[in-house]
Amino acid sequence: MGKSLVYKILERNLLSGNLTDGSEISVKVNQTLTQDSTGTMVYLQLAAMDIQEIQTELSVAYIDHNTLQAGFENADDHEFIKTCAAKYGIIYSKPGNGICHQLHLERFAKPGQVLIGSDSHTPTCGGIGTLSIGAGGLDVAVAMAKGYYFFKMPKVMNIELVGSLQSWVSAKDVILYILKRLSVKGGVGFIIEYSGEGIRNLSATDRATITNMGAELGATTSIFPSDEITKDFLTKQGRSQDFVPLTADSDAHYDEKMQINLDEITSMCAMPHSPDHVKAIRDIEVTKIDQVAIGSCTNSSYTDLMKVARILEGKKVHPDVSLVVSPGSSSILKMMSDNGALGTLIHAGARILEAACGPCIGMGQAPKSKAISLRTFNRNFEGRCGTKDASVFLVSPETAACSAITGFITDPSLYGEKPVIEIPKQYHVSNHYFIYPSEHRADHEIVMGPNIKPFPVNEPLASTMTGKILLKTKDNVTTDDIIPSHAALLPFRSNIPELSKHCFGTIANDFHIVAKKYNGGFIIGGENYGQGSSREHAALVPLYLGIKVVIAKSFARIHKANLINAGILPLTFVNKKDYLCLDELDDLRISEVLSGLKNHKGITLYNKTKEILIPLQFTGSERDAAILAAGGYLNYAKQSNF
Amino acid sequence: MGKSLVYKILERNLLSGNLTDGSEISVKVNQTLTQDSTGTMVYLQLAAMDIQEIQTELSVAYIDHNTLQAGFENADDHEFIKTCAAKYGIIYSKPGNGICHQLHLERFAKPGQVLIGSDSHTPTCGGIGTLSIGAGGLDVAVAMAKGYYFFKMPKVMNIELVGSLQSWVSAKDVILYILKRLSVKGGVGFIIEYSGEGIRNLSATDRATITNMGAELGATTSIFPSDEITKDFLTKQGRSQDFVPLTADSDAHYDEKMQINLDEITSMCAMPHSPDHVKAIRDIEVTKIDQVAIGSCTNSSYTDLMKVARILEGKKVHPDVSLVVSPGSSSILKMMSDNGALGTLIHAGARILEAACGPCIGMGQAPKSKAISLRTFNRNFEGRCGTKDASVFLVSPETAACSAITGFITDPSLYGEKPVIEIPKQYHVSNHYFIYPSEHRADHEIVMGPNIKPFPVNEPLASTMTGKILLKTKDNVTTDDIIPSHAALLPFRSNIPELSKHCFGTIANDFHIVAKKYNGGFIIGGENYGQGSSREHAALVPLYLGIKVVIAKSFARIHKANLINAGILPLTFVNKKDYLCLDELDDLRISEVLSGLKNHKGITLYNKTKEILIPLQFTGSERDAAILAAGGYLNYAKQSNF
Repeated sequence: MGKSLVYKILERNLLSGNLTDGSEISVKVNQTLTQDSTGTMVYLQLAAMDIQEIQTELSVAYIDHNTLQAGFENADDHEFIKTCAAKYGIIYSKPGNGICHQLHLERFAKPGQVLIGSDSHTPTCGGIGTLSIGAGGLDVAVAMAKGYYFFKMPKVMNIELVGSLQSWVSAKDVILYILKRLSVKGGVGFIIEYSGEGIRNLSATDRATITNMGAELGATTSIFPSDEITKDFLTKQGRSQDFVPLTADSDAHYDEKMQINLDEITSMCAMPHSPDHVKAIRDIEVTKIDQVAIGSCTNSSYTDLMKVARILEGKKVHPDVSLVVSPGSSSILKMMSDNGALGTLIHAGARILEAACGPCIGMGQAPKSKAISLRTFNRNFEGRCGTKDASVFLVSPETAACSAITGFITDPSLYGEKPVIEIPKQYHVSNHYFIYPSEHRADHEIVMGPNIKPFPVNEPLASTMTGKILLKTKDNVTTDDIIPSHAALLPFRSNIPELSKHCFGTIANDFHIVAKKYNGGFIIGGENYGQGSSREHAALVPLYLGIKVVIAKSFARIHKANLINAGILPLTFVNKKDYLCLDELDDLRISEVLSGLKNHKGITLYNKTKEILIPLQFTGSERDAAILAAGGYLNYAKQSNF
Repeated sequence: MGKSLVYKILERNLLSGNLTDGSEISVKVNQTLTQDSTGTMVYLQLAAMDIQEIQTELSVAYIDHNTLQAGFENADDHEFIKTCAAKYGIIYSKPGNGICHQLHLERFAKPGQVLIGSDSHTPTCGGIGTLSIGAGGLDVAVAMAKGYYFFKMPKVMNIELVGSLQSWVSAKDVILYILKRLSVKGGVGFIIEYSGEGIRNLSATDRATITNMGAELGATTSIFPSDEITKDFLTKQGRSQDFVPLTADSDAHYDEKMQINLDEITSMCAMPHSPDHVKAIRDIEVTKIDQVAIGSCTNSSYTDLMKVARILEGKKVHPDVSLVVSPGSSSILKMMSDNGALGTLIHAGARILEAACGPCIGMGQAPKSKAISLRTFNRNFEGRCGTKDASVFLVSPETAACSAITGFITDPSLYGEKPVIEIPKQYHVSNHYFIYPSEHRADHEIVMGPNIKPFPVNEPLASTMTGKILLKTKDNVTTDDIIPSHAALLPFRSNIPELSKHCFGTIANDFHIVAKKYNGGFIIGGENYGQGSSREHAALVPLYLGIKVVIAKSFARIHKANLINAGILPLTFVNKKDYLCLDELDDLRISEVLSGLKNHKGITLYNKTKEILIPLQFTGSERDAAILAAGGYLNYAKQSNF
């Protein structure tokens, strides 16, 4: 039987383990990327590992999250990262250059390579055949320091795209349609590999839109073959030498298969407050809108923004709508400035924001109270936009642009002739926002501003653990719930003590006070606990607050890895209905933890309050168990060479 | 003897009083402008006056301050102002359109008219011969509601510009040079009227740069004649019909005269932390810089930004410098996009921000700790940039652009050939960010978000007032000291209780707690108390905290008017050395206040703690006394028709 694309890449980079579902493997990491909101922690960890130089072929530190700079903290973080980059041999991307995923796709990602990034949307580069995995910050630090990445071999799901898209329907509608079918849990445990005749009409950036939002499916990553379209993209970016053709064998083995007929897809919309709460736009009622936000790593490519400009040509943004556009990169902004499209957007009344993540991460442009906001972004979790009672709908750039004109959510197919955007003969390429490391690394001192605090380090695991249930959550709790991400908090990403005051801010009052009162304790979660962003702060803040164990029905992949890396024990129920036997402030005890982990024989939870025993399991690897026993990955990595 | 330009305009608009120095006069107000950070308060006051429609020819509500929108509060403020505008017949300028003063210059200001604005840089429009006065919010609300503005007739100072500017020296250097000569107090009590052969080589926007920073001289306003250059500007803005020629008589009477030889001026720089701490750049030591910020109502015109683009052509921003550019208006951004200049800036590595006030008001782009920031703005007060220990230097766009390339403060004349910028044949004009009021005003409901709180209303003045000295300040305390203005606080401009927690934040700890502890009391100030921004919050917050009296050596004009409007008694020492006889927490008493105000016979302060009597004076008008007696302007305006 033939090999999948995923298998081929992993096989080439495999350092240890077997490429069978569920086995723990380690792979050589070719490239890493970080952004600033997770990056400060990554570089604190890298510095703590006492290395001279990174072991990857290429690593890039992007500044794209905290670009508003409401206080000195942000610019201090930038400076810290810049000085770390210079010291360890990492390329630094200055603020204003654009969004890490868009830039990495344009400039650095290579088909067939392995890329690890400290951002959950790292899979964007899967659009050009790079196996791109979002990971916790510590994993990325270790990848830089040691050149490898450990994870459990996922299943591979093949999604075959057949047919072709209707006029006005685009890549965003495809991934929203898949989210509707598979849900935010549908990709958990899988890498999704796309194939089929339908991909021939998807550009490299269209494909990147689809792999980008594979993160919302919970998938480890998503990937497209590297073909003529990939070659064309790389060539026009001045990188024809980076192209290699790469496809699955025609008889490749897949753990699951699915076929999607592109013809069936109409313009879609993710309703509040989940990316899989998807409806066809023609099926939703008339909805007046207050804001339209276009951009983010999902939909800020040259082609996406050119479509928006063409739709707005000669038109006017509705008086009741605030239309904001954040370009994906400085190169896109320059091209659109030079070809007149930016002038078209401005003339129509659009607000042009800096090339950065911007409103997608709640970094500005919070809409008014109870607003309806239409966004081309990837997440619409409650409160993420900065306004707790706002409703965010996720749509394609076409839908967003048409709706900005009409003032209500509009099916673009009712709007007239679809604009056709030609991919330029050559993309604009500039190095002026990049700082490349010099040969004289040792000269560089790391500069740490006063807001940058050391990260918490755990202690070796105790064999008996007791404590109260401090919080019991519902299903699908996000890392945005565990530690919210918005303009007011992003400056504190390098300051865990300050950040901890906002832990579980969206679902509980003063959790940090409760946690301190009881000297830490247990958290009980539902299904898919810790979905969403990859931020390891969602593990480091609970660690700082004394959380020892999280027991859930199931965990989101990256968050589980982050908990293990932090030395917090992630356990699941043997019988999910036992979830019902646990209530807040119950007194719990688990004992013989170390031996339970080691032999996978399970761990028994004793609910002292209710006087019942509940069987739990640990689904991590031997190595995960060893990391937990050591008190987290940093302690473990210091002791171990592999 | 002939008439000055100022005299001619005031004579035409005079409603009451005599145009002699020190007399209280009232004038017909042709136009008003507000921005959003002072505007919410203005419209709360306007709404409280129960009017049907504004009485001015034209009033515009701009949104340019709170455009980052880190929380729902900003967008709620925008919506509140937008609905007020629709209800009362005011033009609304959407966020993204640009900075109020630049936009008003482009689109609405008319030579020979009187403009009142709730922003201290309203004098910008003096560049085209509009008598443009920054005033407290309540004055602007009354101007809209009743069509008049009361103030004390200032002296008129003539500054004759002779000679012509050296290469690389521009309007910003001229006003910095004047600040060096006159200081931040040099314009207090004056309107400055420019004349002379030297003005022939200053464009309309050059002139606007000079009148803009007249605010930093403490002048009531500054004005240039309306001549062929004005006509050319208005014509190219599509407003030739708004032009009227206007100059002073050749034998005009002036209270003071000064001549400045433009040939003598070299590139200048205001050192930290005051706009009058000016040195010639050639006289300062080599200074490495971290940030360059170009824009603000002082230097964001088309010509200013085109100069920057030409200087950066084919160059690269220094790796250690973050260069941010905020265009003055959407039209400027569009023109620069269409003519390739924006592409030039992007290619050089500049960060392009939204067309708004941005970093000038601390709304983002706070530099790193201890940073050196070079800015083309108008104020460099300590902490205003958002980073308390940063040092801000104020320079021309030419100096800023050259320094961004070299990485240190650079005299542009050492830099090669000066770029020559042609004023375009036609400026871009668009209405797409403006919402013009419809005929159906009554249909519009005012929308108030949950963060918008009623403003405090005072009570009629008591005849005996007692209390402790809560704070004693040094000279030149700014309204930024009284109530800081930065990204974290701007959202609370419509929420006085929240804002009060930060009163005197830059110079005292927990002033609000002290004020509450002693149930309000007295403040002692030095010279020029309340200089800087026009924000009436610097009076409303002390009012909320129970401040009854401010005793100072002297007051800045707008702040004194704001204190009177709020019903807080502003008194000055008869003998300035008595300032030394007052210390914090001394117990004070003043009695027979009402009769003391009425007859200008003076008020005696009894320092109970030190057992001494100190003579004080009230320098306001009869009308000011009546306003204070009524408990502030709102109470007074409700009772009075004039």
